[in-house]
Amino acid sequence: MPEAGILAPAVRAFGLAESYRRTRRLTEALCAPLSEADATIQSMDDASPAMWHLAHTTWFFETFLLRDRLPGYRLHDERWPFLFNSYYESEGERIARPRRGMLSRPTVAEIRCWRDHVDTAMEQVLADPACADLVELGIAHEQQHQELLLTDIKHALFQNPLGPAMWALRDGRSASSKLKAEDPSRRTAAPEGWHSHPGGIALVGHDGHGFAFDNEGPRHRVLLEPFALSSRLVTNGEWDAFIADGGYSTPSLWLSDGWSWVKAEGVSAPLYWRGGEHFTHQGWLPRDPEAPVTHISYYEADAFATWAGARLPTEFEWEAVARGQTEPGFDATAGNQLDDAGPPLPRGGSELFGDCWQFTRSAYLPYPRFAPAAGAVGEYNGKFMSGQFVLKGASCATPRGHSRPSYRNFFYPHQRWQFTGLRLARDI
Amino acid sequence: MPEAGILAPAVRAFGLAESYRRTRRLTEALCAPLSEADATIQSMDDASPAMWHLAHTTWFFETFLLRDRLPGYRLHDERWPFLFNSYYESEGERIARPRRGMLSRPTVAEIRCWRDHVDTAMEQVLADPACADLVELGIAHEQQHQELLLTDIKHALFQNPLGPAMWALRDGRSASSKLKAEDPSRRTAAPEGWHSHPGGIALVGHDGHGFAFDNEGPRHRVLLEPFALSSRLVTNGEWDAFIADGGYSTPSLWLSDGWSWVKAEGVSAPLYWRGGEHFTHQGWLPRDPEAPVTHISYYEADAFATWAGARLPTEFEWEAVARGQTEPGFDATAGNQLDDAGPPLPRGGSELFGDCWQFTRSAYLPYPRFAPAAGAVGEYNGKFMSGQFVLKGASCATPRGHSRPSYRNFFYPHQRWQFTGLRLARDI
Amino acid sequence: MPEAGILAPAVRAFGLAESYRRTRRLTEALCAPLSEADATIQSMDDASPAMWHLAHTTWFFETFLLRDRLPGYRLHDERWPFLFNSYYESEGERIARPRRGMLSRPTVAEIRCWRDHVDTAMEQVLADPACADLVELGIAHEQQHQELLLTDIKHALFQNPLGPAMWALRDGRSASSKLKAEDPSRRTAAPEGWHSHPGGIALVGHDGHGFAFDNEGPRHRVLLEPFALSSRLVTNGEWDAFIADGGYSTPSLWLSDGWSWVKAEGVSAPLYWRGGEHFTHQGWLPRDPEAPVTHISYYEADAFATWAGARLPTEFEWEAVARGQTEPGFDATAGNQLDDAGPPLPRGGSELFGDCWQFTRSAYLPYPRFAPAAGAVGEYNGKFMSGQFVLKGASCATPRGHSRPSYRNFFYPHQRWQFTGLRLARDI
Amino acid sequence: MPEAGILAPAVRAFGLAESYRRTRRLTEALCAPLSEADATIQSMDDASPAMWHLAHTTWFFETFLLRDRLPGYRLHDERWPFLFNSYYESEGERIARPRRGMLSRPTVAEIRCWRDHVDTAMEQVLADPACADLVELGIAHEQQHQELLLTDIKHALFQNPLGPAMWALRDGRSASSKLKAEDPSRRTAAPEGWHSHPGGIALVGHDGHGFAFDNEGPRHRVLLEPFALSSRLVTNGEWDAFIADGGYSTPSLWLSDGWSWVKAEGVSAPLYWRGGEHFTHQGWLPRDPEAPVTHISYYEADAFATWAGARLPTEFEWEAVARGQTEPGFDATAGNQLDDAGPPLPRGGSELFGDCWQFTRSAYLPYPRFAPAAGAVGEYNGKFMSGQFVLKGASCATPRGHSRPSYRNFFYPHQRWQFTGLRLARDI
Repeated sequence: MPEAGILAPAVRAFGLAESYRRTRRLTEALCAPLSEADATIQSMDDASPAMWHLAHTTWFFETFLLRDRLPGYRLHDERWPFLFNSYYESEGERIARPRRGMLSRPTVAEIRCWRDHVDTAMEQVLADPACADLVELGIAHEQQHQELLLTDIKHALFQNPLGPAMWALRDGRSASSKLKAEDPSRRTAAPEGWHSHPGGIALVGHDGHGFAFDNEGPRHRVLLEPFALSSRLVTNGEWDAFIADGGYSTPSLWLSDGWSWVKAEGVSAPLYWRGGEHFTHQGWLPRDPEAPVTHISYYEADAFATWAGARLPTEFEWEAVARGQTEPGFDATAGNQLDDAGPPLPRGGSELFGDCWQFTRSAYLPYPRFAPAAGAVGEYNGKFMSGQFVLKGASCATPRGHSRPSYRNFFYPHQRWQFTGLRLARDI
Repeated sequence: MPEAGILAPAVRAFGLAESYRRTRRLTEALCAPLSEADATIQSMDDASPAMWHLAHTTWFFETFLLRDRLPGYRLHDERWPFLFNSYYESEGERIARPRRGMLSRPTVAEIRCWRDHVDTAMEQVLADPACADLVELGIAHEQQHQELLLTDIKHALFQNPLGPAMWALRDGRSASSKLKAEDPSRRTAAPEGWHSHPGGIALVGHDGHGFAFDNEGPRHRVLLEPFALSSRLVTNGEWDAFIADGGYSTPSLWLSDGWSWVKAEGVSAPLYWRGGEHFTHQGWLPRDPEAPVTHISYYEADAFATWAGARLPTEFEWEAVARGQTEPGFDATAGNQLDDAGPPLPRGGSELFGDCWQFTRSAYLPYPRFAPAAGAVGEYNGKFMSGQFVLKGASCATPRGHSRPSYRNFFYPHQRWQFTGLRLARDI
Repeated sequence: MPEAGILAPAVRAFGLAESYRRTRRLTEALCAPLSEADATIQSMDDASPAMWHLAHTTWFFETFLLRDRLPGYRLHDERWPFLFNSYYESEGERIARPRRGMLSRPTVAEIRCWRDHVDTAMEQVLADPACADLVELGIAHEQQHQELLLTDIKHALFQNPLGPAMWALRDGRSASSKLKAEDPSRRTAAPEGWHSHPGGIALVGHDGHGFAFDNEGPRHRVLLEPFALSSRLVTNGEWDAFIADGGYSTPSLWLSDGWSWVKAEGVSAPLYWRGGEHFTHQGWLPRDPEAPVTHISYYEADAFATWAGARLPTEFEWEAVARGQTEPGFDATAGNQLDDAGPPLPRGGSELFGDCWQFTRSAYLPYPRFAPAAGAVGEYNGKFMSGQFVLKGASCATPRGHSRPSYRNFFYPHQRWQFTGLRLARDI
Repeated sequence: MPEAGILAPAVRAFGLAESYRRTRRLTEALCAPLSEADATIQSMDDASPAMWHLAHTTWFFETFLLRDRLPGYRLHDERWPFLFNSYYESEGERIARPRRGMLSRPTVAEIRCWRDHVDTAMEQVLADPACADLVELGIAHEQQHQELLLTDIKHALFQNPLGPAMWALRDGRSASSKLKAEDPSRRTAAPEGWHSHPGGIALVGHDGHGFAFDNEGPRHRVLLEPFALSSRLVTNGEWDAFIADGGYSTPSLWLSDGWSWVKAEGVSAPLYWRGGEHFTHQGWLPRDPEAPVTHISYYEADAFATWAGARLPTEFEWEAVARGQTEPGFDATAGNQLDDAGPPLPRGGSELFGDCWQFTRSAYLPYPRFAPAAGAVGEYNGKFMSGQFVLKGASCATPRGHSRPSYRNFFYPHQRWQFTGLRLARDI
């Protein structure tokens, strides 16, 4: 990631333009396996149709770069901002979120035309240093929607009793073939190790060099107690043991809201589980007991940690480890993330980034002296600071290069359609 | 409509086969203007996606004719009955109705293949006299779904703020062009006339010659008081007067459940109205004040009748008139009905059939000695006999030849996405 | 019941005054066993607190008799009509029905004061022949609320896990004592007999002599097919057999709406059943298999009749029998009805009136030439004519003298907190 | 509050016994003005009937002290724990929270008998040093319910259109009398001052001497940035200015969840406001513009702070000030709190404790190394640590002596039936 304060503007602009084009191409590649019908349906209020992601990311560039910064630019279609604005109150009225699945028009073909139109116009601003910050924000924004596109379509296809696959299994094995030990992508879960941290004052938050969202700063000091963080994620096999031990029927393991959720929704396993299988972008597949568990809620993560005699880390503990503010040996590099259009699936390993977003016990709240950016983009992060929890790391559906130690992802404690997992912590 | 008891079986079979093919073609023609995305979306629990109608009508023939009557027939896909059974409990479990809009697979192309496959196999049973009754039922069933397909897709496209048209205006006029007096399709509403009936014993219900649904019989006698029936449907212009007179804000005009509905839903006009326009299969069009009002609920029809100092007819009064059991001069022939794939729109005229289904004040209940047919098709009508009202006639979206004087359509009193209208009656 | 057209006005007024006082006393006697807390709670939207019934019946007399007919009368409290108007739109705004249980004030003592105040003032209009019709209506109205008071408080006390009794068992037996054969109130269900009717033209509806609600007229002729009506009500023991035969898990027995209701509500027995007991105004008691089943919905009644190979009667069939328009031997007199303040409980017998209201398969709709009364009291009945079914007879909680052959009670098909039962009919 | 670690056990027991008796008496005194009906109703799921508070606090002592610690004690009624257990999963099943308002039995008189019975038995354990910790917990628990009793009954009486007063105005003034400047209880809001804190490491959390809830510890260090805290609470008059400036119609001031809440609930003022009045335990009274605003949600508090160019303090900032870890001049003593049975109403002043609970921007989460107590009482606090925000201080309905600097109250961000207010903070 180029650092704004160091690189010459021309060099930065060159990198940004390349990054812009690569990001835009990846979004389209992710949609390639989808039929127009696949791209249109919306399976729940939290999710959006794939076509909507295609369009909304384009709306972002058209609105905040072309309309606001490119003199003489005319909107491709004046009626479309009403359809493809997500939640920017300052950008006016918009279609109700649960009705996005009613948009069979404009067609995917029309949206692709719009994308081309916007991409062509964008070439005029990509070289403008005054626009670089917004371009970077737009790229990061589109990367977030790439991950949402993948998790949303997974949820949509899961609704279908036929269990359709978005991508076929690569080697032609049928989806119901049994998991084999010789599967080259399969990794044996490392024995759990604990990396200890002595506590003390840690510096957290983004330092302002290079791109970051506004919610990652300001950088500030926090006081940590001594703690240890697990060297790996909790696995499917460990979750099987939790279930076998009555995890979902023991109220004392659960937060009160979590237990209400379990009873109201009849939850008895992670999302997408069915017997020994789970639903993936390649259809129903046998579940690897060594792979990290995913698609769990905060409530489930917290209950598991209690059952395991551990706890979730705070966001600051996690970040301190990710910054190397600890003993050597932790692999803070990016592991299993999204490099290309293809089926995301957690594999396991010792990396902090990749496989699954990791729940922390930290509520998503503003850092000291945080102030949202001015204008509409100030609505990006700050207004969501109530009721949600911070997740750290990155998942197998997060585009490589998108995350960093200070990154703060956030979801409500009942949500689990993202690739969410957990890494245990404990007091020492 | 050939009469079963009179025609030689071979002649009947020949006509049925022709009717089968014509009906199947019309369904596909109705879907032709739709994109795959249009055909997939479901706008409310009451409605189904167009692709689902394409598939369900095929399921009906495959299940009750091919599977049950054609030795050796194998299901095209054994997983599909779960998807495309509508409400036949005796045919087993099925996808929840509100989730039909999640079926982006099978694709429309795959469903068309299935249709071809079934149509080919059906040729073997179309000539079998033992199957004729079920074939007739299947054709009538598919005709009902043609009408539902039209009203469901209208509702779905209406959700889109762009107001997309399923069919373009034929002469290239833009949808926002003002209604012109010289529009050749426009008809001036006839002055209202009242056809009186002296009362007495009337014979109602189907006589068993030719096809009819089980709920239309047995034929039986009813006692009528003298009454008069309006010679035409209530018009948009008359409804404008009702609104202008405070119709939607005067509780004394409404049934109690109707008034609760008005307040809970914030109803202030028929469905699809907006200013002087209404939404049609050709997009937003100016509303013709002389054309029959449509897309009203039973509650609205009843309130209007009260406001007008009249009432709704009973189903028996309506049928007695339709059978010509009254003074001459009533036009009981079919008027504006669906002949071909094209945009249905009420026009107005003196015919009893066509333009709009007409609410009666009769609850949908069994006739004396009614017994549902044996087997799964016995679930067709009888089990819906609570809470609904009978509508008579036919609408502009009803395939020509589908209705008859004894026909009993039925909907809940709050539903109004069908082409529903009203014809006043009064005591004399 | 004195007949208006025959008795001299003075005689009528004398009878009315007596009837007024007796009715008012009974309401208060029914409330006597209740604590102030019992009288305040509201267990569901359909039900009202006992104190509300005490007050609302008083509001009726104060509004339509004292305020409207007694010059110079001043309202006892001008704020109370807002609280105790039930559904009269023409009487203005009122508290939302589901919030009636929030009225801990005025206190029951204050309401009793109001009752006294109104009763004293009413003495001035009871002798006025011009008021007699409204007084009769008010008395019949209060009798209806006596029945509702009993069924509403039963539902409220049933919510309490302690199962409190409103009235103690008379002979000091504990509520859990086993039903004994020597119980003097217990009656053995008569063997089922069928009373046949030859069909033909029957006169139904009230003749206008004596009091009747507006919905019971006008008297008119209907055409009946030959039928038979059971000589007694269906019993608890017969219902046990229905359950044992899988009645609640066989969809083919049920109306479609009924089956949805069974699944959504998890219904598996009549309301108030638990093992071999049922909840009564005397707490939990063993269930008498010979006594009539009660607290069933229309859906259940219809499913049982289907299971039994019979059907429900129409309201006209029932009325024709009750008018003696059939073979002799039917006991059309009033059986087990409410005579005094005491626990209502069905006992069984051959009477048409008493024990349970009996579901008919007739929707609650206007008779030919029906017109609601003018003014606010016109809202009494007519505006409820959609979605409900007619029940005939009377129950053990119906004050004696309140019902008659033309009486039309009505409820929605899912409601079952009234003393509802069924009497089978069949075609002959 | 006696400190456990310092006082001799006998002295401590003596104080505890006195405290126990005083607390029990106050609960009963608070119920004295209520009718049995008042004490029975439940106005929303969040609130409980007054009689339930009377009973539940007794259940707590009977269960955790008498049943568990007093050999030979027999439960007063074995069926009552099912009714009066609040949320202790380890104590078994219990009545659903929203059904507490259905408990017209046991009567208030029976519950008072139970209280007497338990109080008598408690005398045997009050002197037992081994029970002292649990007795202290039970007293603190009952104090919390005293506050809830007051806020719940306020909400219940507010539902009544008559606006009944729980306590009459002391000097006989009518509830609608205009606020007069000479009202002796009225205080003029002090000019706003800002108390600054230099930041640095602060010690927070309870030190373990004397009683505290488990969630107040362990004591630990936190790092603070320099900040300032307002010397007084925001007033009604300032809130009027917020409304006049469009506070409730400006989305940019609100958290996203807050704005959804404003729109969904139609919120346009604090709870209990109507014109220039507000609803109090003394009925509808004119609102004092100089008094602290109360009955606001976290969403409203946050929006106001944004509008005012300030922010909410963190719980640690507030506690640091309350501990005197700042410049002199702050009045950390208890101000307007509950001393006796009487109407609570915020008055205003410079005290940190009293008038209103003060929202912080801190989510309610466990402190480092927090572990819930063992056994059922471990469910007291820990299981609620998701989705809620911490409030500091105390309100006019908090019994004097109940709160302290480390006290952590917590509510969901939409709740506002407590005496909630706000004190602004800002970065310096």
